[in-house]
Amino acid sequence: MKTAILLYENMTALDAIGPYEILSRLPGAELTFVARNAGPVRTDTGFLTLVATAGIADVTSADILLVPGGPGDETVRADAATLDWVAGMHETTRWTTSVCTGALILAAAGVLEGVPATTHWASIDELRGLGAEPVQARFVESGKIITAAGVSAGIDMALHLTAAACGDDYAKALQLGIEYDPQPPFDSGSPAKAPAELIELVRATLSGAGA
Amino acid sequence: MKTAILLYENMTALDAIGPYEILSRLPGAELTFVARNAGPVRTDTGFLTLVATAGIADVTSADILLVPGGPGDETVRADAATLDWVAGMHETTRWTTSVCTGALILAAAGVLEGVPATTHWASIDELRGLGAEPVQARFVESGKIITAAGVSAGIDMALHLTAAACGDDYAKALQLGIEYDPQPPFDSGSPAKAPAELIELVRATLSGAGA
Repeated sequence: MKTAILLYENMTALDAIGPYEILSRLPGAELTFVARNAGPVRTDTGFLTLVATAGIADVTSADILLVPGGPGDETVRADAATLDWVAGMHETTRWTTSVCTGALILAAAGVLEGVPATTHWASIDELRGLGAEPVQARFVESGKIITAAGVSAGIDMALHLTAAACGDDYAKALQLGIEYDPQPPFDSGSPAKAPAELIELVRATLSGAGA
Repeated sequence: MKTAILLYENMTALDAIGPYEILSRLPGAELTFVARNAGPVRTDTGFLTLVATAGIADVTSADILLVPGGPGDETVRADAATLDWVAGMHETTRWTTSVCTGALILAAAGVLEGVPATTHWASIDELRGLGAEPVQARFVESGKIITAAGVSAGIDMALHLTAAACGDDYAKALQLGIEYDPQPPFDSGSPAKAPAELIELVRATLSGAGA
């Protein structure tokens, strides 16, 4: 199973690394981190650098494409070469996926026109503006396109994808391997559950600093 | 808040990147990825390289130390220089933390002697052999030492630590920011819930391939 994960400056690392930890363990996995150009890519906090082992010119097909989100998505959406790559890769995939505002990149590449999809809760309106049909959900499966909500939602999406690709038992085994038995100390991980003032605070922080 | 996260060859990336995504967003955060020597560090699947911006000689104190796990823990436990660094850092911290088999490294550094602690479920017996008092729990807080269970448990631990450091509201805001509202498609993330044959399969895979 060939997986390509897009990396770009100012992306959010966990969007990519959550699903990577699962998709890298599929049977016969070949997983490649791909950026505009091969080399180091600095993520959004400024503290972490990931390494892309390939440039977009080097990778022309994949079984699974994953596009992560993060404040850098705006720059990617203005880069015709990367958008062309995303659109071209999508023609070759069994699954095209995104996490968080990665959906905005898929939409900008023309992949989500009229397609039910999700993104980070704070970017739902922006996704609508780009032609998708936004849905508030942990992840949304529309044919071969699976879009996940914010940051941590990529873990749930990748387990679902694993079950689709390899069966439920394989997905359950990977879940047990990464001991994914979440026990968040608070129940504030979604705007449906968090207090209104917290939602406005986080929305303001995200639009100010980007996220 | 100064955080140091240890990186080493054949570590499991999500052990570090889950907590990083939270701890990097603490007020005034300075977060440093530290390895034996600064430079690229290849993780356990062979597909992902993270970059350490400092070597252990460059970092002598931190408010928070985080030690991730992964099959490379064995090599680290045989490296006196890194163990000395861990023990020395622990003298300076407000919190000393681990994820997954990172607890085995803390134990090898002498930090967990007689201390209630946890690790990946498949390594609980090994943790006992290194002098800690193993507990099966999502994370275990023993004074300033907080150890988390396997891989994904670092996210829960880091939110707990954030609440301790900055208050519940700050932790809730970060949880909402990363939309951590987990909805695993299966309930097989802990040996207390998974079928016995799945547990044995995963245990065999982990001890064979390392994880």
